[in-house]
Amino acid sequence: MEIKILKNVLDKNLDRANKNRDILLEHGIKMINFISSPGAGKTAILEKAIPLLQLHYSIGVIEGDAYTSRDAKRLQKFNIPVVQINTEGACHLDSNSIFYAFKELDLNGLDIIIVENVGNLICPVAFDLGEEMRIAVLSTTEGEDKPAKYPMLFREASAVLLNKIDLVPYLEFDKNSFLRDIFTINPEMTIFETSAIQNSGITEFVEWLINIWKA
Amino acid sequence: MEIKILKNVLDKNLDRANKNRDILLEHGIKMINFISSPGAGKTAILEKAIPLLQLHYSIGVIEGDAYTSRDAKRLQKFNIPVVQINTEGACHLDSNSIFYAFKELDLNGLDIIIVENVGNLICPVAFDLGEEMRIAVLSTTEGEDKPAKYPMLFREASAVLLNKIDLVPYLEFDKNSFLRDIFTINPEMTIFETSAIQNSGITEFVEWLINIWKA
Repeated sequence: MEIKILKNVLDKNLDRANKNRDILLEHGIKMINFISSPGAGKTAILEKAIPLLQLHYSIGVIEGDAYTSRDAKRLQKFNIPVVQINTEGACHLDSNSIFYAFKELDLNGLDIIIVENVGNLICPVAFDLGEEMRIAVLSTTEGEDKPAKYPMLFREASAVLLNKIDLVPYLEFDKNSFLRDIFTINPEMTIFETSAIQNSGITEFVEWLINIWKA
Repeated sequence: MEIKILKNVLDKNLDRANKNRDILLEHGIKMINFISSPGAGKTAILEKAIPLLQLHYSIGVIEGDAYTSRDAKRLQKFNIPVVQINTEGACHLDSNSIFYAFKELDLNGLDIIIVENVGNLICPVAFDLGEEMRIAVLSTTEGEDKPAKYPMLFREASAVLLNKIDLVPYLEFDKNSFLRDIFTINPEMTIFETSAIQNSGITEFVEWLINIWKA
């Protein structure tokens, strides 16, 4: 019974995601969906990546948050359009909320839309937004076992940013175990070791994105 | 429409949670529900707290996880009953899964049931399991903004364990901002600063629990 309800919700979500994909294609826009636990550093990474991306592209951001607009405020300094979606307690963005966010953006003037999803390793994975790719962000402080515990995200992501890499000396983080689990789930995974605080690894990630989008 | 469905799900969940509460009362068992983001350190805290609690009580554990039984395996060394619930991708435990977990435990032999929920700051908060209290665990590495971003959890928790306190020297964690937000949400909040790796603050937390349960 509940499974049937979920299937209906997901089917409806996919229909709208496909519509979003058509809209993006029509405007020549690439959309990228960042997914992580709360506090893994998505916004901090965007604060470093956006100035690099701005050298090449016109950027818009859609921020998902359960209640606040704190992350959106952190991105206002870049003078780019930022649309805040408050999910009113829901644990993920859906394609319908993205469709309405598109209406708040001047799509003719954009090359890239960055979506920062609600902090959560489970719910956002089930909801296609119409994005071209998903990026998983994992903080080293969360432990090396997270890919094995949340395989769906790591199966579907185009790349993993292993963030807060500067904290590894102070943690019991088993990187070999992390890599073994990741490559078992997805042998083709691209991994970047990043530190938003130390601004390391983010240039390499942005260059990788640019190369994909050029191709 | 979807709100109505959610209301039905939550009403059913509450009915079963009340039934769970009756069962616990009948057996003189206290149940405590640990909620946090993925990787905040719930299991590591339990690894330190359980031996202290075992000096006073007979303990059982119910482990919630989307897919694996990794955390349950970490607790097997304490020679206590551990029931694993795999939610098959769902982002929270519900009262029905707890009801069936009770059947796997010898309730006549237990004083305390510890529930470790699925790692998530949103979904588990909406689902009453029949517990006596909720404990929120937050890692310092997640950032001081999490109580403001996820107020529901911090409004309902009986205490907050601010874990990985040993990492604060390596972070940009604004403790005053954290405390201001917490006390705005819940002026009566009890906060313990803990480090599972350094085994600090956990004795104080366990003593606090014992004093509540004695009263």
